[in-house]
Amino acid sequence: MSGPAPAVALVRHAVREFFGAPGRTALLSGGQLCVAVSGGADSLALAEAAAHVGHRLGVRVRALVVDHRLQDTSAEVAAAAAAAARKLGVDDATVLPVTVDGPGGPEAAARRARYAALREAAGQAPVLLGHTRDDQAETVLLGLGRGSGPRSVSGMRPLDPPWVRPLLDVPRSITREACEALGVRPWADPHNEDPRFTRVRLRSEVLPLLEDVLSGGVAAALARTAAQLREDSEALDQLADELLLPARNGPTLDIEPLLGAPAALRRRALRRWLLDLGARDLTDAHLRAVDALISAWRGQGPVWLPGRLEAKRAHGRLAVGPPGPSKGE
Amino acid sequence: MSGPAPAVALVRHAVREFFGAPGRTALLSGGQLCVAVSGGADSLALAEAAAHVGHRLGVRVRALVVDHRLQDTSAEVAAAAAAAARKLGVDDATVLPVTVDGPGGPEAAARRARYAALREAAGQAPVLLGHTRDDQAETVLLGLGRGSGPRSVSGMRPLDPPWVRPLLDVPRSITREACEALGVRPWADPHNEDPRFTRVRLRSEVLPLLEDVLSGGVAAALARTAAQLREDSEALDQLADELLLPARNGPTLDIEPLLGAPAALRRRALRRWLLDLGARDLTDAHLRAVDALISAWRGQGPVWLPGRLEAKRAHGRLAVGPPGPSKGE
Repeated sequence: MSGPAPAVALVRHAVREFFGAPGRTALLSGGQLCVAVSGGADSLALAEAAAHVGHRLGVRVRALVVDHRLQDTSAEVAAAAAAAARKLGVDDATVLPVTVDGPGGPEAAARRARYAALREAAGQAPVLLGHTRDDQAETVLLGLGRGSGPRSVSGMRPLDPPWVRPLLDVPRSITREACEALGVRPWADPHNEDPRFTRVRLRSEVLPLLEDVLSGGVAAALARTAAQLREDSEALDQLADELLLPARNGPTLDIEPLLGAPAALRRRALRRWLLDLGARDLTDAHLRAVDALISAWRGQGPVWLPGRLEAKRAHGRLAVGPPGPSKGE
Repeated sequence: MSGPAPAVALVRHAVREFFGAPGRTALLSGGQLCVAVSGGADSLALAEAAAHVGHRLGVRVRALVVDHRLQDTSAEVAAAAAAAARKLGVDDATVLPVTVDGPGGPEAAARRARYAALREAAGQAPVLLGHTRDDQAETVLLGLGRGSGPRSVSGMRPLDPPWVRPLLDVPRSITREACEALGVRPWADPHNEDPRFTRVRLRSEVLPLLEDVLSGGVAAALARTAAQLREDSEALDQLADELLLPARNGPTLDIEPLLGAPAALRRRALRRWLLDLGARDLTDAHLRAVDALISAWRGQGPVWLPGRLEAKRAHGRLAVGPPGPSKGE
């Protein structure tokens, strides 16, 4: 008996590796695994691998198909995706019709509706998403081009409960090959070809040009760099938490324990503290201004923050509260 | 009396800001400042600004012009660049003829020869380099595409003694405008148009396409992200040094003090330690293998490193030495 096709084996291997890492089996304690299936090659190949690996790990595997109801044929497409997932071995496939509305562009609204429906349907189970190495490369380029800082350049996380992305190191082309070997015909989302979407142009124009100019290997390089930046960023987050611990003093922050820390670490700690107190939409400029209350103190006034808050320094401590003439804390 | 043209003022401002930052005046204690001048717009605009600001700070300003002697006309070009720099106010302009040879491609060899000549001619004085925001964006993209990790993505550093790069936030177009306003005609290096060079294609093809796809602001965003990543990286370097301090035990490393640190920080500390002991060309995979001697110890054998070294664990310590049957200490 011959084994599976190489591409199929590769996708299964990625899923097996993911759950084989230390501490990951706890994710399966509920006895169930969900896979988000769009009907595209990525998610169909993932559904097959999830069913194969999940059954060996003794869990039920459910496909969740979101019907965005944005096109006339969307119900048909969703039903076909569910049928394909069943054929590929999942125990159950459910179509989740959603209503796409609310603020932001259509892409953002669709994403919001999709993730809310998946989260609700999955309950406590993890939800596998079919993002590939190419999606990761596009995400990194988008983040870079927007200049939105280290967090966005580190791309998508492999584990961000309930989301699980086991294919971040697998090229998209492998998922296509896997589908071919499995005898399923993936759905080609017309949005994936529409040059009005930034991501489509990154995929179809920018990345191929970069591949040509840099002699190949760009998607892999972007994904590798993103992984390293993510680890750096997570290390700094952990160290920022450790830095905050002795400085927290009720709702205020003692300045003394923060003084010797590197500035970038201190700004992370301040960000954490401000978010905990309800601040939102903090930019690098906000954090530098609050940090100056510590590192460049010359008696300056309060720093205004989004959400009608202000940070001020008094008696060797930082305090945050609503602005006003009254002495805030 | 009207002030200087806006572009000229902007370049001067960048140089003034650089030396105005805390601790930077110490760079000028020798009473001299050098500027590397190629004759291109970036370095000519910088030379004018350096002369203007330097004289107000009471230092002599010297232009250094490297003649790579790779083209028949190179001596002429160098002499013209020196003359232009003198016209723009520097106290002195010296042409440094070099011989480009040695390993690596022609770009790498030219860079090596250029930097060695500048370093020697400058003595203890800082050397200003005319790298702009656009050069920084190209460097970040190059680093990203090569996947060579957080260090390369953080781009060029504003201060990396003896090198000083005050224009990393100034668009290249501003330096061209400054030259026009100053009445000097910059030299157009034919290499800057030659599509055989990767950097030229990034500049002339990739970045304009990215600008189009991401609706502008890409060079600024890349430079901003690079600056933030650099600060993160420097914070981690400082913390890695602090982590190493209590662990160093003669030429060996005590494992105990390293155990609780985040993995990314520990790998940085190990990298520092290994470089100090003469290791070279360490990859991420090497560092992970050495780290596994600490974090995933199950009695594994020594880790081979480039430069005929091996790292091994014994008696709760790490040691590095030449490989062999003898006990490496």
